[in-house]
Amino acid sequence: MTTQPDIAPLSYLIGRWSGDGIGIYPTIDDFAYSEEVTFVAPPGKPFLKYTQMTWRAGDHPDAGTALHTESGFFRVGGAGRAEATMAQPTGIVEVYEGALDGQSLRLETTTVARTSTAKEVVSVERRIDVEGDALTYEMWMGAVGQPHQLHLKALLHRE
Amino acid sequence: MTTQPDIAPLSYLIGRWSGDGIGIYPTIDDFAYSEEVTFVAPPGKPFLKYTQMTWRAGDHPDAGTALHTESGFFRVGGAGRAEATMAQPTGIVEVYEGALDGQSLRLETTTVARTSTAKEVVSVERRIDVEGDALTYEMWMGAVGQPHQLHLKALLHRE
Repeated sequence: MTTQPDIAPLSYLIGRWSGDGIGIYPTIDDFAYSEEVTFVAPPGKPFLKYTQMTWRAGDHPDAGTALHTESGFFRVGGAGRAEATMAQPTGIVEVYEGALDGQSLRLETTTVARTSTAKEVVSVERRIDVEGDALTYEMWMGAVGQPHQLHLKALLHRE
Repeated sequence: MTTQPDIAPLSYLIGRWSGDGIGIYPTIDDFAYSEEVTFVAPPGKPFLKYTQMTWRAGDHPDAGTALHTESGFFRVGGAGRAEATMAQPTGIVEVYEGALDGQSLRLETTTVARTSTAKEVVSVERRIDVEGDALTYEMWMGAVGQPHQLHLKALLHRE
């Protein structure tokens, strides 16, 4: 697989990652999840295709059931900048922009939009760091009347 | 695979579809493409996961090379209504709402948003009709200063 010069700064993300995370938010009970993330570079294209799935983990009675999934695309936005577009099954779409410093990515939504039946999400921030075969991320979110705050934190390993 | 009551009105879309289409727009040369679309119903979830890929077709010297891909989710928005969220690798996200009448779906964007490096897209409309194992669609678009008009037209068959 070749990657275009355009996508080279993000090529460290390419692969299949899996691991575990925790979710917290004032409006819900804390939860533990397992996750699988893929970043795929279609040959000759200036973007990465992103997919994500999570399952309930821990000793919860519903352990193993699907929790969340989302999909989208990551691209380079200029020197030291990255962009992402994401669609959510909850009726939300997100446009992200932010800084790419080595293997450290800091993305914040410039737009969050939604269908008329979706819950209100105001801001989402994703902090993604890769070191060797370990990917850690934090997802911060302001939603349903709550201020912007930590929602998800996970550690994944390259498969 | 079971589908929740919520997604039942859209379950006729579930499957893998492939076929051919044509693309036209005032700012580009006409083109022919091959396409593969999947609608997957994750068990117990009130949405369909949507993926799409196209390749250049016909006797073009680049026949077989990847053209476009997009991903997102379809859901029911109430009686006779449907919603969709989509992410584009071109830096665009789309929120759709519209009418679902039997196996005839008419979706129009309520929001189109984009990253700062993306081209301007103002409106997108998708008319998707299924009859037996045939899916036809038209995609209408207003973009890069051009009025809303037909951009893509395809006929796919269930695999």
